[in-house]
Amino acid sequence: MNRRMILYMPLQIIKLQALIMLVPAAVSLFYHEKSGWSFVITAAGALLLSIAGTAIINPKNKTIYAKEGFVIVALTWLMMSILGAAPFVISGEIPHFVDALFESVSGFTTTGASILRDVEIMSRGMLFWRSLTHWLGGMGILVFVMAIVNLSDSPIHIMRAEMPGPIVGKLAPKAKKTAKILYIIYIAITAIEILFLKLGGMTMFDAVVHSLATAGTGGFGIKNTSIGGYSPYIQWVITVFMALFGINFNIYYLLIAGKIKSVLKSSEMWVYFGIMAGATALIAYNTSSLYDNISELIRHSAFQVSSIITTTGFSTTDFNLWPGFSKAILLLLMVCGACAGSTAGGLKVSRILILFKAMNREFNKMVHPRSVQVLRLEGKPLDENVINNCLTYFVLYCLINVVCIFLTSFDKFNLETSITATISCINNIGPAFGAAGPASNYADFSVFSKLVLSAGMLLGRLEIFPMLLAVAPATWIKK
Amino acid sequence: MNRRMILYMPLQIIKLQALIMLVPAAVSLFYHEKSGWSFVITAAGALLLSIAGTAIINPKNKTIYAKEGFVIVALTWLMMSILGAAPFVISGEIPHFVDALFESVSGFTTTGASILRDVEIMSRGMLFWRSLTHWLGGMGILVFVMAIVNLSDSPIHIMRAEMPGPIVGKLAPKAKKTAKILYIIYIAITAIEILFLKLGGMTMFDAVVHSLATAGTGGFGIKNTSIGGYSPYIQWVITVFMALFGINFNIYYLLIAGKIKSVLKSSEMWVYFGIMAGATALIAYNTSSLYDNISELIRHSAFQVSSIITTTGFSTTDFNLWPGFSKAILLLLMVCGACAGSTAGGLKVSRILILFKAMNREFNKMVHPRSVQVLRLEGKPLDENVINNCLTYFVLYCLINVVCIFLTSFDKFNLETSITATISCINNIGPAFGAAGPASNYADFSVFSKLVLSAGMLLGRLEIFPMLLAVAPATWIKK
Repeated sequence: MNRRMILYMPLQIIKLQALIMLVPAAVSLFYHEKSGWSFVITAAGALLLSIAGTAIINPKNKTIYAKEGFVIVALTWLMMSILGAAPFVISGEIPHFVDALFESVSGFTTTGASILRDVEIMSRGMLFWRSLTHWLGGMGILVFVMAIVNLSDSPIHIMRAEMPGPIVGKLAPKAKKTAKILYIIYIAITAIEILFLKLGGMTMFDAVVHSLATAGTGGFGIKNTSIGGYSPYIQWVITVFMALFGINFNIYYLLIAGKIKSVLKSSEMWVYFGIMAGATALIAYNTSSLYDNISELIRHSAFQVSSIITTTGFSTTDFNLWPGFSKAILLLLMVCGACAGSTAGGLKVSRILILFKAMNREFNKMVHPRSVQVLRLEGKPLDENVINNCLTYFVLYCLINVVCIFLTSFDKFNLETSITATISCINNIGPAFGAAGPASNYADFSVFSKLVLSAGMLLGRLEIFPMLLAVAPATWIKK
Repeated sequence: MNRRMILYMPLQIIKLQALIMLVPAAVSLFYHEKSGWSFVITAAGALLLSIAGTAIINPKNKTIYAKEGFVIVALTWLMMSILGAAPFVISGEIPHFVDALFESVSGFTTTGASILRDVEIMSRGMLFWRSLTHWLGGMGILVFVMAIVNLSDSPIHIMRAEMPGPIVGKLAPKAKKTAKILYIIYIAITAIEILFLKLGGMTMFDAVVHSLATAGTGGFGIKNTSIGGYSPYIQWVITVFMALFGINFNIYYLLIAGKIKSVLKSSEMWVYFGIMAGATALIAYNTSSLYDNISELIRHSAFQVSSIITTTGFSTTDFNLWPGFSKAILLLLMVCGACAGSTAGGLKVSRILILFKAMNREFNKMVHPRSVQVLRLEGKPLDENVINNCLTYFVLYCLINVVCIFLTSFDKFNLETSITATISCINNIGPAFGAAGPASNYADFSVFSKLVLSAGMLLGRLEIFPMLLAVAPATWIKK
């Protein structure tokens, strides 16, 4: 384990974060808000820390392997979250550090769970910063850095650790090129969403923050009713763009390259669309008595389904008041998540496909004990290691959910709240049911629960292994 | 697939069931209850069906393989459950067939979930029958048959399909001998429990029915307050015997054989005891304000833990009123279950041990990518097929839980009730939380939910694969 490198790299990356913080500072300046200073102060502190830290550590050997990649990603995200919380505390808009950390982690992990009882009293600079953390966390900050500079000799290890899903598709032979392509697509679709929202009569500020939050599948809103107060047109635009950001970005790359046939053959994409259509129909059927007319019914059903399966977490209606069957569907969608290689959380559709194929094979083995079957995904044979990794990941995922539910159940809430709030945070959705429903927030959770849920959000976003490796004694103790 | 044999065998086994039904008939006779006739009528019908059916089908080729073993077990359990429901309907004590089926399935699968609002008005014959179904279902009716007659040329396939747990330990080279040993141990410990309960002042009837229900880790009581109304001595006796029936029966065999060293080295047993001790301590700490004195506190905590981890489902207190943390622990214990090779349901401790070892290996693979590690359990190396089967079983188990929760959530209850009632039924516990709590029952569930939960109980008891194979088209359609 190259211990120097795993401290050095996160400290290097902080420089970029300092730079990025000047953007919300500029927003504050534009709106004549004093809170802008808190970004400048944080940026200056981060820069100082970075320069001093990297000067002290400066490793001679810059080679890293997969395991270092995991730990670097985990530590970067931790540092990033702590620094991201600083402006909230310094400006006094979120005075308690644990609350600010929860909000910052929730932002970067694109969860969108908030401790704010009233989001509408926040300054514009802070609201912008919250949405920007979603956007950066969605595609991955290290992937962003990678697109700009030469991060290390073997950047693929870092990319693999930060990009979600069972297999990381390489769009180009070089990781740097892949990172660049991904971010260009990401910026382009975000820009198109801003345009569509502007056309619906949104102010520029509202259009930008909502697009950033949609792109990262985050879900921080700037109104207490989330998207509920906006026009049906706006709600539909956001429904569609949430769904678009839940698609594997490889699909967009193939589209640009003109490979329409390959796009149409993507089983993950079709299953994803199929689940959305099915869930929308079932919920519309189940909640039909709650809405006045069919267009409202379809709009609310489609919006909530798109929001939950992509793990965004925006809402147009208080789905905590829906009947149990619809809530059960939403809970399933929370766990399912959207496509691998998108900005969404959850288990990912492709991973679920692999799990189903593995189950089916085990079943066939019982009927035909001597049969040997190679599993395939998207036409390619699946490596046994990938299948095994998927299976153990699923067990680990369940374990993490169970442990976090167990720890948060010590709080004063009922089991429905503890269970769904934890699942919502680990899968990076945001709102849950019960006391953590869309019309409510996470303010009333205990400090302990907030820390557990913050850890859960990071575990979920980075798909568990990086975080576990970062705290494993084997990583730090020399044999 | 030997289609004739998979119909022939269950029909043969029904003969035994007809014979067994004369025992509750005798109990009814002893207490001068008219309901005894319903057992005689059912037995006569079963006998007729069996004789006619086997005469028609009579297969020439009696060879069966693993896949036939699974289907035979599934069909036997289905027929057994339907026949077991008949006396309830005929006597008029449970007039609706779906209710009677639910009660019968709940009995044989050792779940102990009841649709009876008032169990105390039932006749003694019916109460005895309910407990007897627990006892028969606990160790397995086919294993019972196997202990008496030569069931088929390859009885090990049937044993493997009916005995729970990832690996079936052979106590003797021949399956018949193993079945005999298991039932001798089973009868002996049941008899000892009856003795202990009698010593506590229970009537013979109460002692027998409670011992049968404890032995099968079933949980059908004969009082509306379950075990709550009995003396602390009785409650402690049942606590201890529930725990004893949750131990792998291999352990008793080793004890009889004098292999104390092997017994002390059983990691599954120690983990099982460890979980019970830890859970009892945590619940006692969490519920300390609810009980008057420490002996009451410890008694209720230990009883509920022993009852839930062994998936029995007796109760001495309404644990639905416990704080969320204690309920979360109970929910974990429901899923965990006791040892493999016992009469308990749930995932089984040994399977959980294998899952943990598999996760740990995956973790090590990340740190040392080229390492090769053979997993071991109880000192023996684990076959990769067993590990893979454990992993896929876990995925399938989660899937079955999710699907059943999904289907029952269509009922009128809240999410806490739907989720916990389903988990409780699939893991063969009985009581759950919310509207299915220990002070309540399953009477108010819809007919659809009762059928779903009945299917869930059978899936859980037979560990999914047999039931799925029985309904798979490949089993019935010739290529």
